[in-house]
Amino acid sequence: MNEIKLFSPATIANLSCGFDVLGVCLDNVGDEMIVRKSDVKGVRITKIVGADLPLETEKNVSGVAALALLDEMEADCGFEIEIYKKIKAGSGIGSSAASSAGAVFGINALLGNPFSAAALVKFAMQGEKLASGSAHADNVAPALLGGFTLVRSYDPLDIIRIESPPELYATVIHPQIELKTSDARSVLKQNISLKSAIAQWGNVGGLVAGLYTKDYDLIGRSLHDEIVEPIRSVLIPGFDRIKKTAKENGALGSGISGSGPSIFALSKGKETAEKVAGAMCKIYDEMKLPYEIHVSKINDNGIKVLALK
Amino acid sequence: MNEIKLFSPATIANLSCGFDVLGVCLDNVGDEMIVRKSDVKGVRITKIVGADLPLETEKNVSGVAALALLDEMEADCGFEIEIYKKIKAGSGIGSSAASSAGAVFGINALLGNPFSAAALVKFAMQGEKLASGSAHADNVAPALLGGFTLVRSYDPLDIIRIESPPELYATVIHPQIELKTSDARSVLKQNISLKSAIAQWGNVGGLVAGLYTKDYDLIGRSLHDEIVEPIRSVLIPGFDRIKKTAKENGALGSGISGSGPSIFALSKGKETAEKVAGAMCKIYDEMKLPYEIHVSKINDNGIKVLALK
Repeated sequence: MNEIKLFSPATIANLSCGFDVLGVCLDNVGDEMIVRKSDVKGVRITKIVGADLPLETEKNVSGVAALALLDEMEADCGFEIEIYKKIKAGSGIGSSAASSAGAVFGINALLGNPFSAAALVKFAMQGEKLASGSAHADNVAPALLGGFTLVRSYDPLDIIRIESPPELYATVIHPQIELKTSDARSVLKQNISLKSAIAQWGNVGGLVAGLYTKDYDLIGRSLHDEIVEPIRSVLIPGFDRIKKTAKENGALGSGISGSGPSIFALSKGKETAEKVAGAMCKIYDEMKLPYEIHVSKINDNGIKVLALK
Repeated sequence: MNEIKLFSPATIANLSCGFDVLGVCLDNVGDEMIVRKSDVKGVRITKIVGADLPLETEKNVSGVAALALLDEMEADCGFEIEIYKKIKAGSGIGSSAASSAGAVFGINALLGNPFSAAALVKFAMQGEKLASGSAHADNVAPALLGGFTLVRSYDPLDIIRIESPPELYATVIHPQIELKTSDARSVLKQNISLKSAIAQWGNVGGLVAGLYTKDYDLIGRSLHDEIVEPIRSVLIPGFDRIKKTAKENGALGSGISGSGPSIFALSKGKETAEKVAGAMCKIYDEMKLPYEIHVSKINDNGIKVLALK
């Protein structure tokens, strides 16, 4: 096997109550990548279509992630990476994570899978470090493992994968405004009240319980964030109206996707998720704000192999 | 049916990472109570054996909890309550919760169970309010429901019951010192760092996941508290030594039971839990500190009916 073509999915991090620890994998939103063996050692990004991103290996998140893997596992060949970006950078649905995760998944496959998907997370995190300054795992973990992921701990890295209830769908609307992760981070307070924190960990426990018991209502009741959302949501136009309309149209709950500006909702069933999408679009249409809209089943498998040569 | 004799169990609240939201029910540590119908309306505490507690209904936690129930469900008779206290007040294993929960369970049974066990929680919480000033549910919920309980939210009250993995045992050591809940509360900081809070909700998620998947190691890894334990543990003699010896003797994890001074450990299997108990006792023997020690299976059923007349 010399070449692998893969689909690397978009992901929603934080999921309201699970700031910095929870994430979930989408099914039909993502990049395509081709990774192939090369006689020339090292890693080269040979093509990027659909985004203006650096080709230099050390400045590209997929390059950096790939190098982190090859630092631990010597290969007798080099690798070329082509990236067909579909996920917009800065959308808040794991654009950099998809590139980082796809690169290490592809190289691992071409090497005969010396690493488990879980073991690849730490390499992909190096791409995230380049992108945002912090080596977070809440997008790369669901991209690599599928379903929902919980980062129980970063030191040591301990990631729990949780299968999605079968009827769960995500709606994601991306208002076309620029919101840098670093700006979205800088508005956060470094100290929070113990009372809010207790409410938050009650909801994290509730969300995890709801996922295991496939209790859609409990999932919805737990999608609540009184710490980050009230602060960050003011950076996102129409946030309160979008959230309200999602609920009114049957969504289990909604919140900021990652650090925004995308807003996600979870629903039981495709029909409800599409109804929620329609209602969300209507708000931004009225506001004359350009947007992208996605409706996706939860992807329980993560990255998909499209072709092998 | 005119009389019910019941066993009302001790409980461990907080469980390290789950401050104010998690609790678990013990199997062989608890009070006995007799609740009987009476021709005289109202609630009377007719006997308390084993503790110096007020007999006046409005000053007794079981009396207050019983009145809260009868406030919502009129009865055509009155009730007498006898309490045989085995759980020491101020031990940190839910002494007041056992009395409150037992009273409402007994009256509900004599009335033909108009309320579900879950619906009884809010009445029993009124007893907790009398005991500690706050109507918390993290002891009364596991006493009434059995297993582990998660208080996802207080407003509205939303309690999730989680079955215990079958081989889980608790060891609890109670150093005979006085530590008032109000003192243990007053040392807490009202604000905490966002970083610690994130670590904490990662662990709450991990503990809930470990319980559902019966992953004993994950349960152990998640029994970690970097917010409350470092502050409160200085009030408990020998805490660090007890914690260290528990781990060395095979416990999955350990921490402060409720607001202390009892220290709990969870272990896989009775043998390990007993070994941990022996090692804990040795520390307090060396320190010449009097103590009580308990080893108990997790009780998945909560309050037990001992006799009906």
